[in-house]
Amino acid sequence: QWMMHDWKPKRADMLVDPFGFGKTVQDGLIYRQNFSIRSYEIGADRTASIETLMNHLQETALNHVKSEGLLNDGFGSTPGMSKKDLIWVVTKMQLLVDRYPVWGDVVQVTTWVAASGKNGMRRDWLVRDTNTGDVLTRASSLWVMMNKETRKLSKIPEEVREEIGSYFVDYPPVVDEDSRKFLKLNENTTVSIRTGLTPRWNDLDVNQHVNNVKYVGWIFESTPSTVLETRELSSITLEYRRECRKDSVVESLTSVVENEVGDSGFIQCQHLLRLEGGGEIVKGRTDWRPKSYKTIRSANPLPAQSA
Amino acid sequence: QWMMHDWKPKRADMLVDPFGFGKTVQDGLIYRQNFSIRSYEIGADRTASIETLMNHLQETALNHVKSEGLLNDGFGSTPGMSKKDLIWVVTKMQLLVDRYPVWGDVVQVTTWVAASGKNGMRRDWLVRDTNTGDVLTRASSLWVMMNKETRKLSKIPEEVREEIGSYFVDYPPVVDEDSRKFLKLNENTTVSIRTGLTPRWNDLDVNQHVNNVKYVGWIFESTPSTVLETRELSSITLEYRRECRKDSVVESLTSVVENEVGDSGFIQCQHLLRLEGGGEIVKGRTDWRPKSYKTIRSANPLPAQSA
Repeated sequence: QWMMHDWKPKRADMLVDPFGFGKTVQDGLIYRQNFSIRSYEIGADRTASIETLMNHLQETALNHVKSEGLLNDGFGSTPGMSKKDLIWVVTKMQLLVDRYPVWGDVVQVTTWVAASGKNGMRRDWLVRDTNTGDVLTRASSLWVMMNKETRKLSKIPEEVREEIGSYFVDYPPVVDEDSRKFLKLNENTTVSIRTGLTPRWNDLDVNQHVNNVKYVGWIFESTPSTVLETRELSSITLEYRRECRKDSVVESLTSVVENEVGDSGFIQCQHLLRLEGGGEIVKGRTDWRPKSYKTIRSANPLPAQSA
Repeated sequence: QWMMHDWKPKRADMLVDPFGFGKTVQDGLIYRQNFSIRSYEIGADRTASIETLMNHLQETALNHVKSEGLLNDGFGSTPGMSKKDLIWVVTKMQLLVDRYPVWGDVVQVTTWVAASGKNGMRRDWLVRDTNTGDVLTRASSLWVMMNKETRKLSKIPEEVREEIGSYFVDYPPVVDEDSRKFLKLNENTTVSIRTGLTPRWNDLDVNQHVNNVKYVGWIFESTPSTVLETRELSSITLEYRRECRKDSVVESLTSVVENEVGDSGFIQCQHLLRLEGGGEIVKGRTDWRPKSYKTIRSANPLPAQSA
């Protein structure tokens, strides 16, 4: 099994975790874990879904924090943060997908955190094909501190800055921040709208909030099926505005803002999830490319199952 | 890592696959694979969801068939079946859950197939906690052959019987067949009903059918939240009647047929998923026990993440 990790940038620290249990490297600053893609993690395209990729990012982020011994309260708060009722909340997530893995592929996810401005944290991920070493996905997220009682954002207190500073690495972002403006979406600007979306029981996390990753499914609910069926998602940017609870009723709005020029096949969509009655939950932007744009790989046999 | 497999029924064939890649044992008759429970596979209860367990069953069934070299067409058809356009379809699935694993647990799934009557196949699974060796889940499913062109059920042709006979083992079922009758559910007998359910993009498999496992989410859509929030699913039986496609609009009906006696906390529900306008998709029965019934385990730290 070691052989399959024998790709080019042959650094010793890339040879960790061939078995998927996860491991920190570089004094805990970097966390790395392998994932074997399961049949139930692929979609109608036979490739891993974007939700699957985001699940793997979430899992490594949590395992990284856990391996540093900071998961006592479940939010990755340091002792100084706990004392002040502070938790981390994600405000922005950006993924660039170069190629989607298929059933049976093993991917290696590497993650670390860095400072972001004076009062934020950036968490980055690199996802590689363990077989070839190719980078499949780059992702970056921004986090700020919130007081969990008042639900207000907070600056980083000096005491906390001293605690967390040692976990930050000085790497440049793996993804340039997407600074394109979000459009104001509403009924008039929108190509399609899906109302009455409610969390399924299985969408809730242990806090009875809707898990971040589940928002993507709702965004797709208003994405035209012509886009979903003929295009491949090449990038997604999500800005999280407010929490969604089990009783929330959600509307999903999508606007195709940049249609393909000629038959290039590249499309950009903008998305909004909002509470029925008002209140933005998530703003999103997705870029799509033709499915044939990336070299077609010889797919694994179909993991189909009839019912 | 080998140490953690050092539980009592210390048979050599239990020591395979500590790393989760899967392996056949006993000349390919038995397939066995380990799964580490991820943060995104647990629900509001902090335990693996029933969908997660069923996903693991599906994955091992496919890997078993694949390891026998029979997955060319994606349906586990033998050459003799392919010649006659025959595929396997699942008609019944039954799970008994003794204890749910939590985040970070590693479970070992073992599966095999046996004859079922003259024209059917039974696939059984045992799921164990790799740490203790305890059986967590027992599951059994029934399969029949269908002509994929006419969509009609078929007897097993003699030629095919000779091919598949060698894959069948002579083990008794791990679960006694639940022969309790299903009630006829309709608007009058039903406690709750949820209409207008449609597949999400991510619910579809490579054939653009709704994946079997996703039906459970729809069944929960009409299960009273008092049951979901205060009880733990101890068993589920599903009878599959017809396929559901991406354009299907589905209604979910649930009836609480056996309420708790006194404060025992045990509840039985019956379920029906049907197409809007008629047509039964799945009939189901679920048994629920109080959450406190099983010894409360010291849970792992919360994998919570705020948004």
